[in-house]
Amino acid sequence: MVGAGQLARMTQQAAIALGIDLRVLAASPDESAARVVSSVRLGDHRDLGDLRDFAKGCDVLTFDHEHVPTEHIRALEAGGVAVRPGAGALVHAQDKAVMRERLTAIGAPCPAWRRVASAADVTEFAAEHGWPVVLKAVRGGYDGRGVWVCDGEEQAAEAVATGIPLLAEAFVPFERELAVLVARSPHGQGVSYPVVETVQRDGICVEVLAPAPGLDPEDAAVAQRIALGIADELGVTGLLAVEMFQTRAGLVVNELAMRPHNSGHWTIEGSRTSQFEQHLRAVLDLPLGSPAQTAPVVVMANLLGGDDPDVFSRYEHVMAHDPGIKVHFYGKEVRPGRKIGHVTALGDDLDTVRARARHAAVYLTEGIYT
Amino acid sequence: MVGAGQLARMTQQAAIALGIDLRVLAASPDESAARVVSSVRLGDHRDLGDLRDFAKGCDVLTFDHEHVPTEHIRALEAGGVAVRPGAGALVHAQDKAVMRERLTAIGAPCPAWRRVASAADVTEFAAEHGWPVVLKAVRGGYDGRGVWVCDGEEQAAEAVATGIPLLAEAFVPFERELAVLVARSPHGQGVSYPVVETVQRDGICVEVLAPAPGLDPEDAAVAQRIALGIADELGVTGLLAVEMFQTRAGLVVNELAMRPHNSGHWTIEGSRTSQFEQHLRAVLDLPLGSPAQTAPVVVMANLLGGDDPDVFSRYEHVMAHDPGIKVHFYGKEVRPGRKIGHVTALGDDLDTVRARARHAAVYLTEGIYT
Repeated sequence: MVGAGQLARMTQQAAIALGIDLRVLAASPDESAARVVSSVRLGDHRDLGDLRDFAKGCDVLTFDHEHVPTEHIRALEAGGVAVRPGAGALVHAQDKAVMRERLTAIGAPCPAWRRVASAADVTEFAAEHGWPVVLKAVRGGYDGRGVWVCDGEEQAAEAVATGIPLLAEAFVPFERELAVLVARSPHGQGVSYPVVETVQRDGICVEVLAPAPGLDPEDAAVAQRIALGIADELGVTGLLAVEMFQTRAGLVVNELAMRPHNSGHWTIEGSRTSQFEQHLRAVLDLPLGSPAQTAPVVVMANLLGGDDPDVFSRYEHVMAHDPGIKVHFYGKEVRPGRKIGHVTALGDDLDTVRARARHAAVYLTEGIYT
Repeated sequence: MVGAGQLARMTQQAAIALGIDLRVLAASPDESAARVVSSVRLGDHRDLGDLRDFAKGCDVLTFDHEHVPTEHIRALEAGGVAVRPGAGALVHAQDKAVMRERLTAIGAPCPAWRRVASAADVTEFAAEHGWPVVLKAVRGGYDGRGVWVCDGEEQAAEAVATGIPLLAEAFVPFERELAVLVARSPHGQGVSYPVVETVQRDGICVEVLAPAPGLDPEDAAVAQRIALGIADELGVTGLLAVEMFQTRAGLVVNELAMRPHNSGHWTIEGSRTSQFEQHLRAVLDLPLGSPAQTAPVVVMANLLGGDDPDVFSRYEHVMAHDPGIKVHFYGKEVRPGRKIGHVTALGDDLDTVRARARHAAVYLTEGIYT
């Protein structure tokens, strides 16, 4: 696995069970996964030589993030390395313009969009689709970074001035955000997890509700079909997370990720097969596991670093308060706003389960009793 | 954790989630846990110097097995190392005579027993309690090793001739075997998992049924009280597994173990808190987790090595046949009869769940379709 963040860290838990030797390519031995994997190689994921060395002896190469240059992935594939997902699929999670072109071509629901090179382009786009216009970095944005919501040409000009290649999208007046996590294996087997609701704050996911509360079963089926269809059309191998907007007019695809995803952390305890196990099974072309929920309601809350780095000392209260809460720490240094862990609560009643997850998350990160 | 077998390996999965840095003392880098832990120290668990070096920088020392000499544990404790369980508790899982003396003293139900030094001692014991007599090595026996079921003095003489210090126990005509897994923290908090039935073949556990089918709730409560009482009386910190015989006359304590235990592997998916997480929480004096089952019926089947070492190639069938089965491999070389992994099935109906676990176990180890 290229990258040694928390996704690789949690993949190690699944690899241990399956008896799979997981190797990670880390930038430093202090990274989240590098601390818990015995086979760590240090190197730069932007360096083809490092990637080639890393791939030697691996059966399959996969990713903890989308930052490996597409041309390097193509070069690895040309050299006979089994890369999953391959460059032809992964580019859709790396390049938002390529993604929009392809999704439009295959008929997946997208907002109106176009590539823009100037503030005038944005204004022209707004003339047709109205303000605000959402500008997105074509490559490299995540967790709210690389996104500008512009109310007029002046703001658009600021974004354009960064020199980052941009895409304009019509602002989608959504009711809520949903995510569908699917897996697809090289054999073509596909599996979809239940559709979840994701709650964002400042562009960062803070809470995931599984299943999405009150979602019409037909809408859920449509969302799953869209995600499985994209996985199939794009030839995804491994996991595909499809972030969607739910609007009065139907579903709209927002973003794609091709790896274990924050919206799937709830599956560790909340599904018969965790997304990390599923990703390993998919990229190794093993039969996929059951995505069934293990409890009627599962809520995951992210732990975002606060001002106090001493999170561990708050375990006592949280564990005593709620013996059923599941705490996950990523072994990362605490910095304000940084994802340092998550908690998961399971049960029957949404309000209760959500309150439990929120209590634990707020107490662990801020020391406040809610 | 002293020792790097599969128990330490599975403890690593729980340590990753809790953000606890697990260090293991391994005899070789190929051992089960040494393959998946980044902080591995090589050394001999029978060497006090190695143990002292290993303990440096650890907050708490705990065990994957019971083979560390009691006097070394005492020396570590005298040197200020927090050892959990401590020598005063652990000796009861190391020395069966000490265990029987103490359990007898605290009123826990035991078979008739005595220390024996000669075949004549055994015959004398049999005169009172009848044949067969069960002879047990006072120290070091496990998985059926170090146990002799003797029908007469001739067989007893053979066991005595080994020179191993022995204990005689009256043969218990049991209906089935049960196990109770409890945790106790230094604070004195105690938690009991549901009572399970363990099925043995040739002295080795092959299957665990959780909860024990058809067990009278009052008998279950008695079993849990016995186990929690022993943990409290002995001052156990960490996990205590109490193996019991269920007889027409009631429950009889067979063996004790003070660590994660084979009879608790089902808890990884089958309980809200796995035994491995629970052990870490207990030895670190964190509040204990909920032992609630996640499904009405959970069955764990051990994978005992067969003649064919290529187990991994059988994943495909097992995973395709049953997308809900959970497979655990310990990264150990396959040798006939060796515990190389386990599978867990969860569901509502005992017969179905048991058949699923058995199918997967038999196919993985023998390639036979049942």
